[in-house]
Amino acid sequence: MGNPIGYARERMLASNSSPDQPSAMDLGRYREVRALTEKLVAPLSAEDMQLQSMPEASPAKWHLAHTSWYFETFVLAQTAGYQVFHPRYGYLFNSYYEAVGERHARPKRGLLSRPSVAEVLEYRRHVDAAMERLLAAGPSPLDPVIELGLHHEQQHQELLLTDLLHAFSQNPLCPAYATAGEAGTAVAPAHRWLELAEGVFEVGAPADGFAFDNERPRHKVYLQPCALGSRLVSCGEYLAFIEDGGYRRPELWLSEGYEHAQRGNWQAPLYWQRTEQGFMNFGLHGLQPLDAAAPVASVSLFEADAYARWAGARLPTEHEWELAARQAAGPANHLEDGKLSAGVAAAASGVTQLFGDLWEWTSSSYAPYPGYVPLAGALGEYNGKFMCNQYVLRGGSFATPRSHIRPSYRNFFPAAARWQFTGIRLAKSR
Amino acid sequence: MGNPIGYARERMLASNSSPDQPSAMDLGRYREVRALTEKLVAPLSAEDMQLQSMPEASPAKWHLAHTSWYFETFVLAQTAGYQVFHPRYGYLFNSYYEAVGERHARPKRGLLSRPSVAEVLEYRRHVDAAMERLLAAGPSPLDPVIELGLHHEQQHQELLLTDLLHAFSQNPLCPAYATAGEAGTAVAPAHRWLELAEGVFEVGAPADGFAFDNERPRHKVYLQPCALGSRLVSCGEYLAFIEDGGYRRPELWLSEGYEHAQRGNWQAPLYWQRTEQGFMNFGLHGLQPLDAAAPVASVSLFEADAYARWAGARLPTEHEWELAARQAAGPANHLEDGKLSAGVAAAASGVTQLFGDLWEWTSSSYAPYPGYVPLAGALGEYNGKFMCNQYVLRGGSFATPRSHIRPSYRNFFPAAARWQFTGIRLAKSR
Amino acid sequence: MGNPIGYARERMLASNSSPDQPSAMDLGRYREVRALTEKLVAPLSAEDMQLQSMPEASPAKWHLAHTSWYFETFVLAQTAGYQVFHPRYGYLFNSYYEAVGERHARPKRGLLSRPSVAEVLEYRRHVDAAMERLLAAGPSPLDPVIELGLHHEQQHQELLLTDLLHAFSQNPLCPAYATAGEAGTAVAPAHRWLELAEGVFEVGAPADGFAFDNERPRHKVYLQPCALGSRLVSCGEYLAFIEDGGYRRPELWLSEGYEHAQRGNWQAPLYWQRTEQGFMNFGLHGLQPLDAAAPVASVSLFEADAYARWAGARLPTEHEWELAARQAAGPANHLEDGKLSAGVAAAASGVTQLFGDLWEWTSSSYAPYPGYVPLAGALGEYNGKFMCNQYVLRGGSFATPRSHIRPSYRNFFPAAARWQFTGIRLAKSR
Amino acid sequence: MGNPIGYARERMLASNSSPDQPSAMDLGRYREVRALTEKLVAPLSAEDMQLQSMPEASPAKWHLAHTSWYFETFVLAQTAGYQVFHPRYGYLFNSYYEAVGERHARPKRGLLSRPSVAEVLEYRRHVDAAMERLLAAGPSPLDPVIELGLHHEQQHQELLLTDLLHAFSQNPLCPAYATAGEAGTAVAPAHRWLELAEGVFEVGAPADGFAFDNERPRHKVYLQPCALGSRLVSCGEYLAFIEDGGYRRPELWLSEGYEHAQRGNWQAPLYWQRTEQGFMNFGLHGLQPLDAAAPVASVSLFEADAYARWAGARLPTEHEWELAARQAAGPANHLEDGKLSAGVAAAASGVTQLFGDLWEWTSSSYAPYPGYVPLAGALGEYNGKFMCNQYVLRGGSFATPRSHIRPSYRNFFPAAARWQFTGIRLAKSR
Repeated sequence: MGNPIGYARERMLASNSSPDQPSAMDLGRYREVRALTEKLVAPLSAEDMQLQSMPEASPAKWHLAHTSWYFETFVLAQTAGYQVFHPRYGYLFNSYYEAVGERHARPKRGLLSRPSVAEVLEYRRHVDAAMERLLAAGPSPLDPVIELGLHHEQQHQELLLTDLLHAFSQNPLCPAYATAGEAGTAVAPAHRWLELAEGVFEVGAPADGFAFDNERPRHKVYLQPCALGSRLVSCGEYLAFIEDGGYRRPELWLSEGYEHAQRGNWQAPLYWQRTEQGFMNFGLHGLQPLDAAAPVASVSLFEADAYARWAGARLPTEHEWELAARQAAGPANHLEDGKLSAGVAAAASGVTQLFGDLWEWTSSSYAPYPGYVPLAGALGEYNGKFMCNQYVLRGGSFATPRSHIRPSYRNFFPAAARWQFTGIRLAKSR
Repeated sequence: MGNPIGYARERMLASNSSPDQPSAMDLGRYREVRALTEKLVAPLSAEDMQLQSMPEASPAKWHLAHTSWYFETFVLAQTAGYQVFHPRYGYLFNSYYEAVGERHARPKRGLLSRPSVAEVLEYRRHVDAAMERLLAAGPSPLDPVIELGLHHEQQHQELLLTDLLHAFSQNPLCPAYATAGEAGTAVAPAHRWLELAEGVFEVGAPADGFAFDNERPRHKVYLQPCALGSRLVSCGEYLAFIEDGGYRRPELWLSEGYEHAQRGNWQAPLYWQRTEQGFMNFGLHGLQPLDAAAPVASVSLFEADAYARWAGARLPTEHEWELAARQAAGPANHLEDGKLSAGVAAAASGVTQLFGDLWEWTSSSYAPYPGYVPLAGALGEYNGKFMCNQYVLRGGSFATPRSHIRPSYRNFFPAAARWQFTGIRLAKSR
Repeated sequence: MGNPIGYARERMLASNSSPDQPSAMDLGRYREVRALTEKLVAPLSAEDMQLQSMPEASPAKWHLAHTSWYFETFVLAQTAGYQVFHPRYGYLFNSYYEAVGERHARPKRGLLSRPSVAEVLEYRRHVDAAMERLLAAGPSPLDPVIELGLHHEQQHQELLLTDLLHAFSQNPLCPAYATAGEAGTAVAPAHRWLELAEGVFEVGAPADGFAFDNERPRHKVYLQPCALGSRLVSCGEYLAFIEDGGYRRPELWLSEGYEHAQRGNWQAPLYWQRTEQGFMNFGLHGLQPLDAAAPVASVSLFEADAYARWAGARLPTEHEWELAARQAAGPANHLEDGKLSAGVAAAASGVTQLFGDLWEWTSSSYAPYPGYVPLAGALGEYNGKFMCNQYVLRGGSFATPRSHIRPSYRNFFPAAARWQFTGIRLAKSR
Repeated sequence: MGNPIGYARERMLASNSSPDQPSAMDLGRYREVRALTEKLVAPLSAEDMQLQSMPEASPAKWHLAHTSWYFETFVLAQTAGYQVFHPRYGYLFNSYYEAVGERHARPKRGLLSRPSVAEVLEYRRHVDAAMERLLAAGPSPLDPVIELGLHHEQQHQELLLTDLLHAFSQNPLCPAYATAGEAGTAVAPAHRWLELAEGVFEVGAPADGFAFDNERPRHKVYLQPCALGSRLVSCGEYLAFIEDGGYRRPELWLSEGYEHAQRGNWQAPLYWQRTEQGFMNFGLHGLQPLDAAAPVASVSLFEADAYARWAGARLPTEHEWELAARQAAGPANHLEDGKLSAGVAAAASGVTQLFGDLWEWTSSSYAPYPGYVPLAGALGEYNGKFMCNQYVLRGGSFATPRSHIRPSYRNFFPAAARWQFTGIRLAKSR
C-alpha cells in the first residue's frame, strides 16, 4: 500500500471544483445538449426508437419527447404566451411527477406508435424555438430550472443508450448500435490498494454552482481508515470468480441477492453469453469476444458485493469514494469520446477510472444528507421520493456526458439492477 | 316462432357447398391473398407495425413475416434448390410448431425492431418469387400445403387487425386505422326466434374440398328441438343489460366469468368508453359514438353467456349454429367489403348475419370430432393441440376474408378473450 | 375385439337403476352419512384437521363445519324456531353461494384456528339434534333439500381425504392416514378392447329418483362406433410411458398441458417420488413402493390425454363411458370398503373398474345437457355456474361412498387438477 | 427546545452499560429463557400453534422447535455423545442457514401438522436435558454460542407473538390472546423536542459483553445538530394525519411507499378497523376501541416516514437514536411486564419510551458497521447476509424481553413491514 491518497485531505476539503463543471446558463450550452440527444438517435430506425423491453426502461422516442416535455412543463408553461404543442403530450410524457397530474402508465410507453418519430422531432423543434426566444431574452428567474433541465436531458442521454442496449439484447439477431473498432490488445495494470486516512471530512456539493438537491448540504462525516482499489475490476478477474463457482456459493452473497441469482438463473453478468468458444459480451457494438482486460460491466450491486467478498474485500461507501474522487485526475472516457464501451485502465499511479468508463456501486443506501431539503414544488419529486431501497453509484460511465459528472454526483439504482453501465471498485477497511 | 328453418334438413345434409368455397390452387389466388395482406398494412407506419400490446397478440410486421415463414418452411424448404432467406428467420418467425424447432418467445415479438419492415417485405418478395416458380410449374404434391398456407395467411389477415386494434386501444390518442364514414341511421329489425327441428343431422366438412382438419370427419349428431335468434344482439340491447346491473349480478354469470369481470373491473365490452355524453366505441375507425343498432362486439364468452342468461336465453351449440348456417343466404359483410365494422342487421326473413359481421360465440368447448385425425407431421400441430379450455366461434366477421369462411368452419378462443371481433347470437331450447 | 358390449343397448335404455341408488329419505340414512364423516376424522389430530395446503383444498375441520352449515342454512333456517348456532358461522362456512351472502375467503380457510375442533363438533351436535327432530316429524317439503345435503356431505367425505392427502404430501415426514396392509402380489389382467355399437342412445338421469341437476334432462345422443379399455391403466403401463420420455415429448400433449408440465416440472404422477430404488407412491397409507399392477392415480387430464395418445388411443367421452357403465357389474372398491387405495383389476370379462377405484377422466367438457334447468334459488349455484373450463370425470373412486355414485353421475375438475383420485380409462374410435 | 440531552456526550461515550444487560452464562438464565417461551404458548390450542398466515411469519409450534434446533445444531451436535432427537428435524427446523444444509421451504411451515405440539415439547425436553448436563459441567468453549442461543430464543419470543397476532387478525372471530384490562384513561403528555449536540461520537457495542455481531465494532461517527421527539407518536396524532388525507397525498410519501399503500389499499395502520363508531384496534387483547393516547403501532417505515413529513419532521437516524438512548432512564414496558400492548407515555422530562413499548423505525438502512466482521462459520449467516434493503429499528417493544435489549441493539425489517410492534419517533435537524 505504497501510494496513500489520504494526505491530500486538506486540499480536497478546500476545493470542490470539478474539471468539467459547466459554466453559467447560455444558449450555446442549451443547443449543444439538445443536439447531442438527437445525434444519439441518428443511427436508429423508427422501429428501434419504439422499443421498450421492460417497465424500467423507456423507448428512445419517449426519451426524446420527455426531455422536451420537461422544458415545456417546468419552463415554458410558466412564461406568458406559450402555446402548448399538443394537449395530450402532458399526459403522455410526464414520467413520475404526481404534482403535475395523471400520466401514461410507465410499462406502456412502448405502445405509443403515435406520435411518430417525426412528430416528436417536430415537438422538439417547437419547444426549442420557444426556449431560444426565452434564452435570448437574457437572465431569467427560470434559469436554475433550465439548468436542471439540461442536466436532466443528459441523464436521459445515458438512459437512452442503456435502455436501447437492453432492448437490443432481446433480439436474437444481436443488433449493433455502432460499429466496433479493432479488438483491444491492452492488458490491465496490476490492481493496487491506495490508502485513505481516517478523520473528519466534508462531503457533498458546496452551496454554489449547479448540483442536484440530493448532493446537498455539504456536511461533515467521520471516515475510518480504509483503502481503495486502483482501478475497476476486470472481466478476467470476474471470470475467475465465475469459474470458482461464485454464482453457486451462497456464503458469498447477500441473502436477497442469492435469491435473485437463483430465481433469475444468473450465471454471469447480464450481457455475457456463454458459447463453445468461451464468453462473448453484448454491447453497443453488438456481440464481441470478451476482453479480459476491460472492466466487467452490467453487474448488479449483488454481484459486485459477492465478487468483493470472494476477493477478500468490500465495496466502498459513497463517502470513501467521494474523498478519493476529489483528487482524481487523468483522462476519462465519457459519452463525447464516442468509444461507447469501458476502456482498459491506464497504467497510472493513484486511483484511476474514478470518472467515466463505468458507474461504481457503493455500499451506501441512497438516503438524504443531514439537513436535506428537496426543491420546492413538483421538482421536489426529482430525487427525494426515491430515497429508499436504492444504492448509490458514483463516477459516471462511458455514456455519461463529460459536463454532467461531479465528485459529489449521486446516481442510484436498486441493488438488483443490471442493465446500467455499472462496474466494480473494491475497497477494504484497514 | 313462425319461420322454422329445420325443414331443410335433408337438403342441408345433401349439400355442403359454401357460397364462397375457393376453387383449386392457382397462381392468381396465391397472388390475391398475399397482396391483400400487404394492402392491410399500407395505412401503417413502421412504428405501428412494431406494436405488441399483450402476449396473445403479435405485431403486424410479425404477421407479415410469419405468413411467409409458413411457405418457406412447409413448402419451399421441401423443394430442391431453395435458398433460405436468412438463417435466423426460422427461429424468429415460427409461431408454435414444436416439431420445427426452437422459437422466439411469443411475448417478445414486439421487441424485434430488426429485421425492419423493409427487410420483412424483401423476405416476402424472396418467398413469393420462389412460390411463383413452384406454382408455375404445375400441380405438385405440396398443393394441399399451399392451400393450407393461404387459409393460414387469411387467418392472420384478421388477426393483424384484431391485434392492431388492441394495440391502438392502449394509446390515449385513440388512433384510427381507417377514416370513418357517416354515422349510421339504420335501426335494427326486431329480434325473432327461428326454430330448428329435432333429429339426427350430419355436421362437419365433407371429405373433399378444402377444410381444416378440425372440421372433419363429417359425422352424425342428435339435436334437440331449439330456436335461434334472427340476428346478432345489438349494442342497444346490450346497454340495457349493463343498465340493469348485468356486470354486478353474480347469478347471471358463470363463476369463472364473474371472477374475471371482478378482477378486470369489466363494466362494458372491451372497447366501450364511458364518457359524460354516454358510451363511445373504439374501433378501426377510432373513437366513435356508440351505434345502438349495430351488433355488440368485443365481448368474451363470459359476457355473451351472462347476457343470454339475462335475456332468458342461452348461446347456441356449434352444431345448432352449423345447421342454421347451411341454408343462410343474403349479403355478408367481409374483409373485402372494406367496411371494417359490424353492420346493422338487414330486415330479412330467416336467420341473418350468420356469416360476416362478427364471430358468434357458441357454448361448445373446442374438441375433436369423433374419429378426428390431425394432419401428419408438424402441421398436425395446427389445430389439434389446442383442443382444451377453448370455445368454438362460428361464422367469421367483417375482418374475415370472404373466401375463407364456411358453414363448418370452427374458430376457437378462450372464454375470457375479448379482443376478437366477437358478438352474441342467442338460442333457446324448446 | 371379441366382447362387444353394445348389444345391450335396448336393455340399457330401458333401465337406469343403479345398483346402489339410495332409497327414500330417512333418519337412519341421515345418521349413517353424518357418522361416516366423523369416522373419517377419527385418526386425525386437531393440527391435522387445520391444514390447508392450497386454495383449492380445505381443512378437514372446515369440511366438518361446512357440511353442517348446509343443513343449517338450506334446511333448518327455513323452519320455525330454529336457533342459529353462532352468528358468524354463516360467514365462515359458506363455500361459494353468492345468493346466501358474503363469505370467508377460500384460500384463508386454513387460518381459522378458532372455532376449535371441539366447537365444530358441538356445532354438528346442535345441527343434528334439530335435524333429528325435523326428520322424526315425518315427510316435509324440505326432504329433497335434505337428500341433496346428504349427497353433498358424501362429496365432502371424499374431498376431505383428497385434501388431507395433499396436505400430508407437503410434509417431509410423509405421514400416513392409515396403516398399510401387506404389499399386493396381484398382477393386472391383460388390457382388452370392448366394442360399443353406433346409434342413438339416451343418457342422463331419469326424471325420478335422486340425481344432481347436472345429470338431467335425460336426452338422446348419437354415438359413433368405438371401443373401451377393459380396465384402468396400470402403474406399470404408465411407467413405460415415462421411460419412453412421455413427459418430454410435446407431440404427445395438448399445448396447454405441456406448458403445465414444463412450468410445474412434472415428471411423474403427483404423488410418485423417484428414489434410488425406483419410484415410491405416496398415498393414504404413507409412502409405499409402487405397485405396478395397481391403477395409476393422481394424474391430470393432461397426463391422461398424453398417455392415451402415446398408447395410440384416446380418452372416452362421458357418453361413451355412461353407456358402458349402464351394464357394469362386479365388485367395486368404495369408501365403505376401507381399502383407501385403488385395487388391481379383477380378471373378469367385460369392462371392469367402471365404478370405484379411481375417477376416470373423460374428454368431455363439463357443459349443461340440452334443456338443463338449474335448481331454483341459491342451490342453483350448486353445479351450473361451474360449467366452463372443467372436464367430466365418471365412476367414483375408492374414496367415494357406495350409495353416492350412479352411471349418470358427473364429477368435474379442471384439466390440470392432479390431487383427486383420478385414473385413466382408454377408448378408441372404430 | 429547553431540555438538551447532548450535554452528556462525554459520559455516554464513557459508559455503555445497559440497565438490564445479562450477567454471565448460567443454568438459571437458560431455564428462565426456555421457560418463558413455553409460558407464552400456554394460552394457545394446538390449532393456534399451527397457524402461518404469510411466508414471513412462522407457526408458534415452529418457533418452539426451531429454538431447540438451534441448541441441538450449534451446541449439542458439537459435543461428544449427543443423540439427535429425530433425523429429519434438522431439515424441518433450520430457518435459513445455508451452511447447515437443505431446509423445509419457509412458506410451508404451517403445513407441518406432524410433529405434533406434544412431540415438539418432547423435543424441547430432550434438548433441555442435554443442555442442562452441559451447563452443569461448567464453563465451555461453547458458552458464547449458548449465550447467542438464548438471545436468539428471546428474539423468537417476540416473533411468536407478532406472528400469532397476524394470524389471529385473519380470523373474522377476532380471537384474543389475552384478556384485556380496563380501558385506559391516561392522556399523552405534550410532545416536546430534545436537542442533541453536534460532534464526533462513538456508537456500537463495546468489545466486551454480549452483543450481536452487527452491533460491532464500536466506532466514531459525526452527528449534525438535531432534536428528538420526547415520546412516541400517539394514535390520536396519527388519526389527524389520516383525517388530513395522509394516505391519499403522494407528496408526503416515498415513491415506493405510496405504491405499496395504493396497491395494498392502506388506509390506516395494519390492525385498525374502521367501524361506524370510529376506529377499533386489533391486538393481543382482541378487538378494542382505539386509545388515542397510546402510541400508534403496526406501521411500516413508509407510514412512519409519511407521518413525519406531514408533521414537518423526519425519522431519526439510528446513531441519533443511540446517542439519546445511552442516557435514557425511567420505567420501560417489556415482555415480562405482561401488559402486551404499548403504554401511554409518562409525563417525565427528557426523552421517554426509548426502550420497550414499540420498536422505533429509523431512517438508517441496515448496513455493516465499518470494519464489521461476521461470526465465523454458519453463525456468520445470523445477521450479515440480510444487510440490504432493510431498515434499522431500535429500542424493543412491549414484547421484547427486558434482558434482551441494549442501546446498541439493531433490529431490522423491510420498509413495507407492518406486522411488527413498530411505532414512530420523530426527529428533526437543527
